[in-house]
Amino acid sequence: MRAARWHGRKDIRIEEVPEPQLRPGTVAIDIAWCGICGSDLHEYLEGPIFIPPHGHPHPVSGESAPVVMGHEFSGTVTALGDGVDDLTVGESVVVEPYLIAEDVDTTPGQPYQLSHDMNFIGLGGGGGGLSEKVVVPRRWVHPVEDIPLDQAALVEPLAVGHHAFVRSGAGAGDVALIGGAGPIGLLLGALLTAEGLTVVMTEVSAARKAKAVETGAAAHVLDPTEGDVAARVRELTGGRGADVGFECSSVDAVLDTLLDAVRPGGVVVNVSIWGHQPVVDLQKLVLKEIDLRGTIAYAGDHPATIELVRSGQVDLAPFITAHIDLADLVEQGFETLVHRNDTQVKILVRP
Amino acid sequence: MRAARWHGRKDIRIEEVPEPQLRPGTVAIDIAWCGICGSDLHEYLEGPIFIPPHGHPHPVSGESAPVVMGHEFSGTVTALGDGVDDLTVGESVVVEPYLIAEDVDTTPGQPYQLSHDMNFIGLGGGGGGLSEKVVVPRRWVHPVEDIPLDQAALVEPLAVGHHAFVRSGAGAGDVALIGGAGPIGLLLGALLTAEGLTVVMTEVSAARKAKAVETGAAAHVLDPTEGDVAARVRELTGGRGADVGFECSSVDAVLDTLLDAVRPGGVVVNVSIWGHQPVVDLQKLVLKEIDLRGTIAYAGDHPATIELVRSGQVDLAPFITAHIDLADLVEQGFETLVHRNDTQVKILVRP
Ligand SMILES: NC(=O)c1ccc[n+]([C@@H]2O[C@H](COP(=O)([O-])OP(=O)(O)OC[C@H]3O[C@@H](n4cnc5c(N)ncnc54)[C@H](O)[C@@H]3O)[C@@H](O)[C@H]2O)c1
Ligand SMILES: NC(=O)c1ccc[n+]([C@@H]2O[C@H](COP(=O)([O-])OP(=O)(O)OC[C@H]3O[C@@H](n4cnc5c(N)ncnc54)[C@H](O)[C@@H]3O)[C@@H](O)[C@H]2O)c1
Repeated sequence: MRAARWHGRKDIRIEEVPEPQLRPGTVAIDIAWCGICGSDLHEYLEGPIFIPPHGHPHPVSGESAPVVMGHEFSGTVTALGDGVDDLTVGESVVVEPYLIAEDVDTTPGQPYQLSHDMNFIGLGGGGGGLSEKVVVPRRWVHPVEDIPLDQAALVEPLAVGHHAFVRSGAGAGDVALIGGAGPIGLLLGALLTAEGLTVVMTEVSAARKAKAVETGAAAHVLDPTEGDVAARVRELTGGRGADVGFECSSVDAVLDTLLDAVRPGGVVVNVSIWGHQPVVDLQKLVLKEIDLRGTIAYAGDHPATIELVRSGQVDLAPFITAHIDLADLVEQGFETLVHRNDTQVKILVRP
Repeated sequence: MRAARWHGRKDIRIEEVPEPQLRPGTVAIDIAWCGICGSDLHEYLEGPIFIPPHGHPHPVSGESAPVVMGHEFSGTVTALGDGVDDLTVGESVVVEPYLIAEDVDTTPGQPYQLSHDMNFIGLGGGGGGLSEKVVVPRRWVHPVEDIPLDQAALVEPLAVGHHAFVRSGAGAGDVALIGGAGPIGLLLGALLTAEGLTVVMTEVSAARKAKAVETGAAAHVLDPTEGDVAARVRELTGGRGADVGFECSSVDAVLDTLLDAVRPGGVVVNVSIWGHQPVVDLQKLVLKEIDLRGTIAYAGDHPATIELVRSGQVDLAPFITAHIDLADLVEQGFETLVHRNDTQVKILVRP
């Protein structure tokens, strides 16, 4: 079958690889769509990061580079391994793309995302969504019922937002400030809006500010070049400040704005991945007793995330900005994102 | 009466000031002992920080420099203002030294420590413990029963530790790593030990390492110059890591060690005050889903803190390293601390 494999930096090849084999307890899936994620871009430009380097097989998958890429994907069940009797051939599904060691408890609610040797299908081995087929353990397969398969490919980044929401402890009626309206910030905004929060976003890019308004992901969009964001958040909240902030930009100044904009006793969830160590004005954290919380991926978030989309509370369609072929992955996918084409939100690839 | 007043940097004068007057709802106290705190030292060297500068009266106290200093104090009730009927003349008390605006709810459990214009008696005006007498609102007076009055002067910094403990969410059976065995780290260690936690401290100073062991404030003391602290914490915890870390040093490298040493899903409480903005390896916070929590002073912590001392669960005597006279405040108090005499923990002043 055809698959996109990472061989090295700026060396992702579309090539023929053997089809994965059905094993007991697993599910075979024909892939419909796969999104390209910021992490994929980092692997393309600066990898290997999550990818196990050549000759250093990952303890769970047993694989090292070259590995198949793609972890934001949807598809159709084609076969069920021995012992799997609660799914149907032909059913639409998404995959929670985990590689987790055997001794770890992967019951929903357990913090398996923090377990030793955790990695992702599509980065650490185990196949991936940028290929025709994949075979994954039943545990990681989630039915999506009648969600269109292209939209279903966005369940994975939306689940990142769901997990960040759960980590925040926030709820309906709260005011959230999201720093950065990239794919992660926008999907998080749509999710928080669906959960009944009032969402304010801060963003510098004109295209992304427009997207945040257009998609309904934010009720208010504030540009830091046009005035003091924290002061404007206080105005919007009767002097109080936001209940919660979400850092989705990996920019020091944005984190600082969130520390300024949340109310005393507020929470800031750090969603972004940091390639550098930021300078943080911790005195603000002390004097306002802020909780700064890390969040990584998801754990037990897929069912609730899928239900938000299935029920129509979150409409994922406006976040899909391109559908491309696997053959065009590098040129129309990675190279578009490298050049920070900020009119793109989610580019979907069809294998 | 005699009082120590802050006039400017390195200009603290022992002088005659008018006695404070009893008003309805207040309590008159003859001061027994007053501790010198790190914040007092900062005001001495780099102030005004909390102190309202000359000509800029604090909205709650109406005072500006020169102000009476001292916020860690104990004393004896000498008179009760109109309407105060639940205290007795002659009773031993400590003061929760707050200046809080009138529109703020100061019920125990309410976050009045985070309220607008919050300041401290002994810094922001309202008299102070480095004087013979003080008159304070009934709300801030806490009876200490038979706790010796010199030890009672340490209830205030112990309450800082109690509040940090409450903020941490930790409890009996947990393992805590405290970064920095200064007065705050040591008292926190004694409190956590009394609460049933296993306390590990990291410290560089020989005198303070010895103090941590001698006083029983820590079960284990680790010197970062003698090996990897986080690795040794993992050894001590069967590979797991500490449940909670407390930053009490204002040193970037110590915070980083705490992020390394806590377990996935762990908590780090930032107790220290930052005069600079530290560089923080936030990627550790993300990948381990750490909660980094600010804590400031106390709110509703005094009764539980006093009970720990009264019942003998925390012995404050070993943390008192000198008793001096008010006349010697600058030379034997501030100047000793300026030269980082690390054999001192708490210097008590008798007015
Ligand atoms: N924690 C997790 O599990 C997880 C999962 C996926 C992605 N991420 C991370 O989330 C972050 C966001 O991902 P993304 O794909 O949306 O990134 P992105 O780079 O597309 O989006 C960042 C946005 O921030 C905006 N921005 C930059 N400077 C700004 C400023 N000063 N003020 C306001 N906005 C500003 C940019 O214009 C951009 O739109 C990344 O760090 C990514 O690695 C984390
Ligand atoms: N949050 C609050 O309400 C509150 C209240 C009071 C004090 N504080 C703050 O708490 C902090 C501690 O106060 P303190 O009076 O104990 O301070 P301190 O300076 O006496 O103690 C700090 C200790 O850290 C040690 N240290 C320095 N570098 C180290 C390293 N690399 N590894 C290990 N140990 C190291 C020092 O030797 C010292 O013993 C200060 O920042 C103070 O301002 C906060």
